[in-house]
Amino acid sequence: MGKLLRKRTQKAGLPPGSLVYTGEKVDTQVSITLVEYDEQQFQEKEIASFEECLLLKDKPGVTWIKVDGLQAVENLQKLGDCFNLHPLVLEDILNTDQRPKIEDFDDYIYIVLKMIDYSENDELNSEQISLILGSNFLISFQENNAAIFAPVLERLRTSKGRIRKSGADYLAYTLMDLIVDNYFVVLEKLGEAIEFMEEVVVKRATPETLQDIHRFKFDMIMLRKSVWPLREVIGRLDRRESDLIQEATGIYFKDVYDHTIVAIDNIETYRDILSGMLDIYLSSISNRLNAVMKVLTVIATIFMPLTFLAGVWGMNFKHMPELEWVWGYPAALGLMLTIALSMVIYFHQKKWL
Amino acid sequence: MGKLLRKRTQKAGLPPGSLVYTGEKVDTQVSITLVEYDEQQFQEKEIASFEECLLLKDKPGVTWIKVDGLQAVENLQKLGDCFNLHPLVLEDILNTDQRPKIEDFDDYIYIVLKMIDYSENDELNSEQISLILGSNFLISFQENNAAIFAPVLERLRTSKGRIRKSGADYLAYTLMDLIVDNYFVVLEKLGEAIEFMEEVVVKRATPETLQDIHRFKFDMIMLRKSVWPLREVIGRLDRRESDLIQEATGIYFKDVYDHTIVAIDNIETYRDILSGMLDIYLSSISNRLNAVMKVLTVIATIFMPLTFLAGVWGMNFKHMPELEWVWGYPAALGLMLTIALSMVIYFHQKKWL
Amino acid sequence: MGKLLRKRTQKAGLPPGSLVYTGEKVDTQVSITLVEYDEQQFQEKEIASFEECLLLKDKPGVTWIKVDGLQAVENLQKLGDCFNLHPLVLEDILNTDQRPKIEDFDDYIYIVLKMIDYSENDELNSEQISLILGSNFLISFQENNAAIFAPVLERLRTSKGRIRKSGADYLAYTLMDLIVDNYFVVLEKLGEAIEFMEEVVVKRATPETLQDIHRFKFDMIMLRKSVWPLREVIGRLDRRESDLIQEATGIYFKDVYDHTIVAIDNIETYRDILSGMLDIYLSSISNRLNAVMKVLTVIATIFMPLTFLAGVWGMNFKHMPELEWVWGYPAALGLMLTIALSMVIYFHQKKWL
Amino acid sequence: MGKLLRKRTQKAGLPPGSLVYTGEKVDTQVSITLVEYDEQQFQEKEIASFEECLLLKDKPGVTWIKVDGLQAVENLQKLGDCFNLHPLVLEDILNTDQRPKIEDFDDYIYIVLKMIDYSENDELNSEQISLILGSNFLISFQENNAAIFAPVLERLRTSKGRIRKSGADYLAYTLMDLIVDNYFVVLEKLGEAIEFMEEVVVKRATPETLQDIHRFKFDMIMLRKSVWPLREVIGRLDRRESDLIQEATGIYFKDVYDHTIVAIDNIETYRDILSGMLDIYLSSISNRLNAVMKVLTVIATIFMPLTFLAGVWGMNFKHMPELEWVWGYPAALGLMLTIALSMVIYFHQKKWL
Amino acid sequence: MGKLLRKRTQKAGLPPGSLVYTGEKVDTQVSITLVEYDEQQFQEKEIASFEECLLLKDKPGVTWIKVDGLQAVENLQKLGDCFNLHPLVLEDILNTDQRPKIEDFDDYIYIVLKMIDYSENDELNSEQISLILGSNFLISFQENNAAIFAPVLERLRTSKGRIRKSGADYLAYTLMDLIVDNYFVVLEKLGEAIEFMEEVVVKRATPETLQDIHRFKFDMIMLRKSVWPLREVIGRLDRRESDLIQEATGIYFKDVYDHTIVAIDNIETYRDILSGMLDIYLSSISNRLNAVMKVLTVIATIFMPLTFLAGVWGMNFKHMPELEWVWGYPAALGLMLTIALSMVIYFHQKKWL
Repeated sequence: MGKLLRKRTQKAGLPPGSLVYTGEKVDTQVSITLVEYDEQQFQEKEIASFEECLLLKDKPGVTWIKVDGLQAVENLQKLGDCFNLHPLVLEDILNTDQRPKIEDFDDYIYIVLKMIDYSENDELNSEQISLILGSNFLISFQENNAAIFAPVLERLRTSKGRIRKSGADYLAYTLMDLIVDNYFVVLEKLGEAIEFMEEVVVKRATPETLQDIHRFKFDMIMLRKSVWPLREVIGRLDRRESDLIQEATGIYFKDVYDHTIVAIDNIETYRDILSGMLDIYLSSISNRLNAVMKVLTVIATIFMPLTFLAGVWGMNFKHMPELEWVWGYPAALGLMLTIALSMVIYFHQKKWL
Repeated sequence: MGKLLRKRTQKAGLPPGSLVYTGEKVDTQVSITLVEYDEQQFQEKEIASFEECLLLKDKPGVTWIKVDGLQAVENLQKLGDCFNLHPLVLEDILNTDQRPKIEDFDDYIYIVLKMIDYSENDELNSEQISLILGSNFLISFQENNAAIFAPVLERLRTSKGRIRKSGADYLAYTLMDLIVDNYFVVLEKLGEAIEFMEEVVVKRATPETLQDIHRFKFDMIMLRKSVWPLREVIGRLDRRESDLIQEATGIYFKDVYDHTIVAIDNIETYRDILSGMLDIYLSSISNRLNAVMKVLTVIATIFMPLTFLAGVWGMNFKHMPELEWVWGYPAALGLMLTIALSMVIYFHQKKWL
Repeated sequence: MGKLLRKRTQKAGLPPGSLVYTGEKVDTQVSITLVEYDEQQFQEKEIASFEECLLLKDKPGVTWIKVDGLQAVENLQKLGDCFNLHPLVLEDILNTDQRPKIEDFDDYIYIVLKMIDYSENDELNSEQISLILGSNFLISFQENNAAIFAPVLERLRTSKGRIRKSGADYLAYTLMDLIVDNYFVVLEKLGEAIEFMEEVVVKRATPETLQDIHRFKFDMIMLRKSVWPLREVIGRLDRRESDLIQEATGIYFKDVYDHTIVAIDNIETYRDILSGMLDIYLSSISNRLNAVMKVLTVIATIFMPLTFLAGVWGMNFKHMPELEWVWGYPAALGLMLTIALSMVIYFHQKKWL
Repeated sequence: MGKLLRKRTQKAGLPPGSLVYTGEKVDTQVSITLVEYDEQQFQEKEIASFEECLLLKDKPGVTWIKVDGLQAVENLQKLGDCFNLHPLVLEDILNTDQRPKIEDFDDYIYIVLKMIDYSENDELNSEQISLILGSNFLISFQENNAAIFAPVLERLRTSKGRIRKSGADYLAYTLMDLIVDNYFVVLEKLGEAIEFMEEVVVKRATPETLQDIHRFKFDMIMLRKSVWPLREVIGRLDRRESDLIQEATGIYFKDVYDHTIVAIDNIETYRDILSGMLDIYLSSISNRLNAVMKVLTVIATIFMPLTFLAGVWGMNFKHMPELEWVWGYPAALGLMLTIALSMVIYFHQKKWL
Repeated sequence: MGKLLRKRTQKAGLPPGSLVYTGEKVDTQVSITLVEYDEQQFQEKEIASFEECLLLKDKPGVTWIKVDGLQAVENLQKLGDCFNLHPLVLEDILNTDQRPKIEDFDDYIYIVLKMIDYSENDELNSEQISLILGSNFLISFQENNAAIFAPVLERLRTSKGRIRKSGADYLAYTLMDLIVDNYFVVLEKLGEAIEFMEEVVVKRATPETLQDIHRFKFDMIMLRKSVWPLREVIGRLDRRESDLIQEATGIYFKDVYDHTIVAIDNIETYRDILSGMLDIYLSSISNRLNAVMKVLTVIATIFMPLTFLAGVWGMNFKHMPELEWVWGYPAALGLMLTIALSMVIYFHQKKWL
């Protein structure tokens, strides 16, 4: 949990604009893929460093520079020089503790998004995706080299759909649509787990159940932090406040916007459901206490009078005529049985048994 | 519950604009009804596929294409070509996980609504209704071929009210009014069930009652998700932001808008009432625990002193003069009875009995 | 409770504009009172049906048509024709499940209000008041013929205050002021009941107390539903968005607006107080459980050791020297008394007794 | 509590504009103080009635009419005539159930404020202050003649600060600043009480503590009702929407505005703290129940097995060889002691003792 | 806690504009540092009083007057005269109970910020920082002379980064960035403590844990009060509403703005987590009560029937044939053992043991 919330203090004291990667230093290779395409042609190659990017600028068609892994710090400065990126943008790309946001510079838009998926040990994992959208280029940054954008690359290769006929803004839309669709994959998995847990809560809740509920609640908080700001980010793209978004693409961003709202709706619904489960859990504890106390009370109520009676006939008074009777003992036992049975019947009627 | 929340991931990975029906695949027949009417005449026929629609376009009078069942995927593309619908609109019609929304294109408005009713097994059921409103045509899509629009069709046939004299916008209003009126049918049924449960909670609440309360709460969340966005959808129609809504029809949308607000008000009221019932339920558990503990305490408080006394006179000391007395035993019993009675009186005064 | 929330479904399936009265059908007589006045003269008469209204139109002075009881359905249509009222307005007048609202038509304003008072059996009662305000006429509709507007009528008759010198808008203000003032009567009565209950909760709360708290909470929800929308309704009159409100009358509506805000404030305060009472009630249950458990624990802690000691000396071991002592029995009793007393002192110090 | 919320119904039924004082009728003398000053001179005198006010109008310098006590009803009308005040303003001055508000008439501003302080019996007391600010005069009304404005009067007399050089708007600011500063006095006193109670809650909470918490919560609601609307009132003065506020004074109102925000902030913080104390109180009840139950369980667990053993050896079976042993009794006692001790050690390890 | 909320009443009654330091009077020396720099040169010296400031005004380059400690009250007036500062600004600098705010005067901007850090005894400490930003000068005030701005001073000395090339607005940005970065240091430390406490709550919660949770909650309220208003303060700088902020610096303020939003997000997340921990704590108390009651019930349920049986065979009836049997005693013990064992097995199956 803490991992998701603190990442920033390594930078405290450094001047603004310092390029320091603040994410987890895992040993992934940095890979830079260069994709150039227009309606007729498609070209894809790996490049070793950002130094080659100068050659690619201002070509016809759309250029997509796909950067996987954020360790190549010095090189990033070169990319910045080449595309005239503001130092703070470069800093933000490396600072993986951003909130989803959009910044409109004159000749490019800088977009920060959060990709959420499950890690191997079933924990929610948040990865920062940065997009820089220019008039005819798109630069994407992701923290590690997972193949999250593979379907889009494949569609470009095989020229499926309108993606090859459209500009860099449509490419940006495709990537954002992929990220938002992924929220639904995560939400569906969470939804199944919550639905399963709902039965558990009712039938056999343990203190661990409470912790599970709170883990899910925390996951929802995490998701909410990623999806909620998206609303504004995509809203601004959808309203086409920048000239870099063509009119025909606007409606596509409106579509992602609607999906985002549906995701937020579902997150809020799950939060409500989880709150309800907490109520059920807490009242199930109380119900069990009630059940335990009923057992105790039934036992005590049956045996206390009986033990008292046995005590009475165990007294050593000289003159206790019933002790002499032949049928005294069976009569005593019979009386005790009668008392016990009437108690049982009474509790049965009160539904305590 | 899960059923209502997840429906989307079958599409992940496909390019945008892919026409995939995401609702439940039930084996309903797709039926397309074509209705043409103006003040003088009324014509109604079933057509086999959307290919015939081209012939019907740009006729005088109002044309209503009523599509029941959303399985005819290939054909939908033809309808889209015929009426110049945007690919994303066609995709949204089939994607039944939409939020109620309105989209204003230049020559038509696309409206998504949710029809809520009860299934046979008394669960809330949400069905997506899409409307495409043009200057002189209306296309309606519903997931299955239930007869929800039958009253409107009947009114058109018999020429009742102003519906035959008005345009396609008034027809759209009539359908939306029907859907909103249906929320009140559902709310009334829920209201009766909640009112009945209120007595149950006070008098004989069981753990199942808690689950019922939470099921109703979930139903309210569901309803709210459907009705809340309607507010904005109909608000935009009422403000007549599009030229497709005539001035005379505006006031009718204002009326549906008011009904929507009343529905939202009632939903919020029921939510408050359900929260109150939860409090009553939880405190009734505590009250019962109190009652159980009082029984235990009364029993223990009466019999513990008595058992102690019996124990005392059961001791084997040589010199216990009272054991020799003739009236010792009756006196002992009398003392015990006195103690028991005073305890009972004491608890009676404390209102524990 | 349910009564207040459901009233609508009798209309489902009917075309819009159908004139059906949806309130409770009580057997009240419909009475129509016609009042005409200006600064010099005042005239008041009962009329039998709306057919006479045509004669009254466009006279000098102010005309107030006061309709008590909403059963005269066919006639209402005639009134609508006479004053050019929109069919939906007529429908809304009869549909008593409206939310307070205001609708500005070109030559009249339609206002819906809720009059709240107590019924004989001390339940909150909501009655719908509709006002139609024209340039020189006001038509008021109320569900039954209670004398709620009597003070205004009396003031008109006796020419007190500025009411006879002012127009129809000032008459509308007077009626609305009366309705808002009535909220304070209800709030005061509720406030006294809540204040009384506050003592009950602290001193002798029963499960019925909880139900009372929730009944008051529900009353507050009811009041809130009636008063909250008034804020907007009167706000629009106060801003004089319609030409039918004269400048001099604007400040009076501003005054009613301020009263409405004070009423909302008080309702919110009562809601907070009721929430606090719920906390006190719930914790008083816990406190009583604590008290019960303390009694049980004290009894058990005193008598268990004593009973054990009695049991020890009741054992049948051959060689128990103390049993032979002459002072054995008094010593045993003395020891038991000592133990009991020290327990009592201990619990006294712990403040359990 | 009720006292603070109900004061209005004495007026129901009267025509609007009726001048009725609705506050508590305490037997205070009405006193009217007339202050005239400019940079050079200062004059102060008591006047007997408002009839003299005509003479004072339109003089050079600033005129402050300070009215203490609101019983002089007939006279108020004369003041209204003299300064052309709207009848509703006069009504509002006497109706002490107002919310803080501001009303901008053409040639004067009417401001309602609430002065909060502690009464002798330590209850929060709310007093209504009305200000009428004209171009060169200020009329202030307070419910009783407490010396709340004495410091300002003193400062005028001794010509300290810029108050004598400035206009009536600066005088209004000075009075409002005094009222807002007073909120901090009240908040500080409440803060000390809350801080003290915080220790009580943790260490020795009683049911009275809960009532104290709720009393403080209610005080906070009261304060909030007075301070929250001030935000808007002063905000409008600070934005200088009226010509009566000079540019140089605007910044001073901005300063009071900031103080108001700080007061609101502190109120919200105290509300959060009080909510937290409620949690601590409720869980301290649960903790004590736990403690009680542990004592009971320890006692029962130690003595029940021992009593059972004593019972076994008290049985009257013929053939119980251990009863014959010489060391039987000491061995039995030893066994019992061992069991008791191991129980004690066990509970000690479980931290129940 | 109280310390953080009350500081104001020492001033009540004084005229506005009175220069009184309201913070804690600790015995720190006031020190005034004068820094002058442009791209080429850097000069730094301590000055004894504000009287020297007149000489420094209107020099080329940027002038930074850094005031540490707020005790030098009379001198502050001189600084005010020298830079034409409004009396209320001087008052606010000394009044350390401000909310973060920004005020735009014509030729300078006055900014109030809160620096939060941990004191030695691990309590949150809030210090007020005031900045006065002119066209070519910046005056900073802090309550004590801690070295919080040392890194910026060092960067100026060594000419690192763009700070020496930029104007006074960039210097202001650098100081504000430092303060906001500090929030993250505090948040990280709090986050670690909360994460640690999370384990404690689940495994070994004590009543002190509850107080810790509430202390953290209070810390979050404190932080929120400092950070939340920053949003608006920096937002106004970022929108460049004043001419004193150059266009190139705007984007840097936008960056601090984003950091502020992230800080607010994290605070809200921690608040949610703390609420969840409260739930876990409260339910862990209930769970323990359950455990205690189960022990009691198990013990009572096992030993009550056994004690009863021992009592039966301890009765003194003449005719109890089983007492005579040779195997009577072992059979009785065997029966008791069987009952005890079946109880144990039963409770084991019910998971109570």
